Amino acid sequence: MLKKLLYPSSVAVIGASPKPGSVGYVVLENLLSRFKGAVYPVNPKYDEVELWGRKVKFFKSVLDVQEPVDVAVIATPAPTVPKVLDEAGRKGVAAAIVLSGGFAEAGNAALEEQVVAVARQYGIKVLGPNCIGLFNAFADFDTVFLSSERAGRPPRGPLALISQSGAVTAAIMDWAARRGLGLGIVVSYGNEAGVTVTELVEAVTDDSNVRVVTLYLEGFRYPGEARKLLEVARKVAARKPIIAYKAGRGRTAQRAVKSHVAAMAGSYDMYRGLFSQAGIIEASSVREMFDMAKALAMQPIPRGSRVLVVTDSGGLAIQAVDVLEELGLEIPELPESIARELKRELLPFATVSNPVDLTGSATDEHYKIVLDALLPTAFFDMALVITLVQVPGLTHNLADYITAARRYGKPIAVVNFGGSEFVIKFERALEDNGIPVYPTPERAAKALWALYRYGEVRRKIAIAEAAAA
Amino acid sequence: MLKKLLYPSSVAVIGASPKPGSVGYVVLENLLSRFKGAVYPVNPKYDEVELWGRKVKFFKSVLDVQEPVDVAVIATPAPTVPKVLDEAGRKGVAAAIVLSGGFAEAGNAALEEQVVAVARQYGIKVLGPNCIGLFNAFADFDTVFLSSERAGRPPRGPLALISQSGAVTAAIMDWAARRGLGLGIVVSYGNEAGVTVTELVEAVTDDSNVRVVTLYLEGFRYPGEARKLLEVARKVAARKPIIAYKAGRGRTAQRAVKSHVAAMAGSYDMYRGLFSQAGIIEASSVREMFDMAKALAMQPIPRGSRVLVVTDSGGLAIQAVDVLEELGLEIPELPESIARELKRELLPFATVSNPVDLTGSATDEHYKIVLDALLPTAFFDMALVITLVQVPGLTHNLADYITAARRYGKPIAVVNFGGSEFVIKFERALEDNGIPVYPTPERAAKALWALYRYGEVRRKIAIAEAAAA
Repeated sequence: MLKKLLYPSSVAVIGASPKPGSVGYVVLENLLSRFKGAVYPVNPKYDEVELWGRKVKFFKSVLDVQEPVDVAVIATPAPTVPKVLDEAGRKGVAAAIVLSGGFAEAGNAALEEQVVAVARQYGIKVLGPNCIGLFNAFADFDTVFLSSERAGRPPRGPLALISQSGAVTAAIMDWAARRGLGLGIVVSYGNEAGVTVTELVEAVTDDSNVRVVTLYLEGFRYPGEARKLLEVARKVAARKPIIAYKAGRGRTAQRAVKSHVAAMAGSYDMYRGLFSQAGIIEASSVREMFDMAKALAMQPIPRGSRVLVVTDSGGLAIQAVDVLEELGLEIPELPESIARELKRELLPFATVSNPVDLTGSATDEHYKIVLDALLPTAFFDMALVITLVQVPGLTHNLADYITAARRYGKPIAVVNFGGSEFVIKFERALEDNGIPVYPTPERAAKALWALYRYGEVRRKIAIAEAAAA
Repeated sequence: MLKKLLYPSSVAVIGASPKPGSVGYVVLENLLSRFKGAVYPVNPKYDEVELWGRKVKFFKSVLDVQEPVDVAVIATPAPTVPKVLDEAGRKGVAAAIVLSGGFAEAGNAALEEQVVAVARQYGIKVLGPNCIGLFNAFADFDTVFLSSERAGRPPRGPLALISQSGAVTAAIMDWAARRGLGLGIVVSYGNEAGVTVTELVEAVTDDSNVRVVTLYLEGFRYPGEARKLLEVARKVAARKPIIAYKAGRGRTAQRAVKSHVAAMAGSYDMYRGLFSQAGIIEASSVREMFDMAKALAMQPIPRGSRVLVVTDSGGLAIQAVDVLEELGLEIPELPESIARELKRELLPFATVSNPVDLTGSATDEHYKIVLDALLPTAFFDMALVITLVQVPGLTHNLADYITAARRYGKPIAVVNFGGSEFVIKFERALEDNGIPVYPTPERAAKALWALYRYGEVRRKIAIAEAAAA
């Protein structure tokens, strides 16, 4: 339904501009330099301009374009938007992305009503207004009007973000780009005058390039939207995990949401209830949302809640255990027989218990021995592996041993912390092989919890479906 | 009292070794390459060895050294430690740092008792055993036996860390080094057989190079230690902030603490009560401890709890407000008269309320106008400034404007997020000028809370002192 919005063949940029730094300039430059489909700049002030070493033809109106246009990206001043959208409607565009601000969020609800009316008349799917648009790495389609020097573009990858806030979206993209996090699809939906958050969740979950959907939510724009999201999420959550972060929990925050995106914040309890019923995993911060998303994209779903903790740092294991217990995960004792065997193979002063503390004298082989002895057994559902590679006995081989333990089909999260080249190379080796790495035990524990929670979501849906059948 | 331990003039390395990678080698290399005082390698197996391009003379025993020795660093196998410590005692060392493990933490309580007995006999201050030792950037004194390729050494700076866990200490150092965080003094105290955590807190707080003391605690080794720490902390907290992170809160964690450092974890509630009574600020993670420490080292103490929030991202402001409210800080409305004035000077669609939302169309000057209008007034005690510099209107001048607002004498914390060069340069400009920057609103809010909390600690102590006088 939103296929043409996400994967257009041709795009008109209404309000395209040859003035460096302007919104119409950045969008045009991004599209002309990377987008494989047709790009039609529209601006009545220009005919043909020499830009980026080539002659770029401008159209007076989108109606002057002879070829079909799938998507109109609109970057003209707010008062002109109804008129240019009407032209785009007559041209027959399937969707429009309205980057312009100055609508309901600025008190101009009537102007936004006009946009909605035009969109209805022609059946145009309108994203925005007051949004930074869409970034789809798989289609090389990028309408984000911030230069890539400031707001980097992440690499292709299985994570998708649907976000109500433009600036937060830009910052997340920049951060993901820096870390090489595969955030392949990003949609900023702003005032939600046309395309709703629920439609986006449905469309993005349907996308075969996407494995995990993240949702940055401040409030619902429309009464009834919560119910719609609930229905859709219940359907799609069995196929792909949806993780949401809800900003605006307290009273002052709810006042701020209203002026920010012209939306109702509603009570935080309502959102929590909705997420829980809909099978949406709730994150308590943006960072946590991506910590969880990374694990869900890389790792299998555990069968239960029993975590094996292996460490070379007693201190960090203690922190991990604290958080795992708070999250309701189990840290069962080792089976007697295996513990006896391990005692013979590990260092005499290692603690053969759960957590298994190999101590600062650990070697790569000690980790291998523990993982191979315990992870294949029915006693554990997942592993939290702490590797402070600052200690002298560890080498980069450890990354291979941990990666090899993937064969047991159980989730693994690694805690690693520091900043030297040695440490960074070690982390990259793990993540390149699908093992997520976190700088603190808290974050790794929460990521494992998300895997467990998603398993529960799927089990519940399966039971409900079986009962309904 | 511990002055000679922290700032020795001469050091003997007992168990010094010419074998690359060994503990005795790394320690010797670190000391010979940087320490300005005298260094005496002790190992009966060697006479003179060519090392690092020079001839290094080894002593058979510390008793063979003619000159006075302040500190003995001991890296020999555990069973030999009582004997070499006895020699160090006869030599008249003031302090010893026992790096060796294999004592109470490995079930050898009797061996540790022997060490304690020798230390008592000669009045030697013993740090450890089972520790990674001491790093004092101000004295170029470094007994951390991990190579700096893996465990970086932080630059000189006003933060100090006292830590019970060796590996956590190494990882924190590596992380601080990478981020340029001025962690000037680091003490790992391991089994606490001699020098206690309380003595260290007192000594480090007395050090004029230190502005903020951080404490990584798993459990107290001795009954009565909690009371001693309480007494000392109450005395010193008025002069310098102490921030503590207590690992090991749940039941499984407490079991793990016992085997890790031979300490009693005790109930978490007991620790919380102790911190609160002692005026120690509690952090909920290692990362948060340093977030707070950075703010306390850079910023003044606020007079009250009222926070001005200025932002170009409505979304992030909402998150900030959520956390500030949860922490009990206030976000008061703007005074009418100033709000009216600001409405004339800011963009028509800016939200002139608290948070002040300048929107994604913000310029550097908008921030300046808001900070200059509100921060000098009696209505606000501190500012949380959110600058998503991904938006087009902001330049590096903004860092100068924010830095200039320091003249109002009120704490400022900045939220900035992303990863591009532009973003990183902006952050560096702020931090180089004493404005702490955090990647999330949550972390900045918690840092401001720590400043507020420390203000409360000081007020309470002042009242108690006035009442006692």
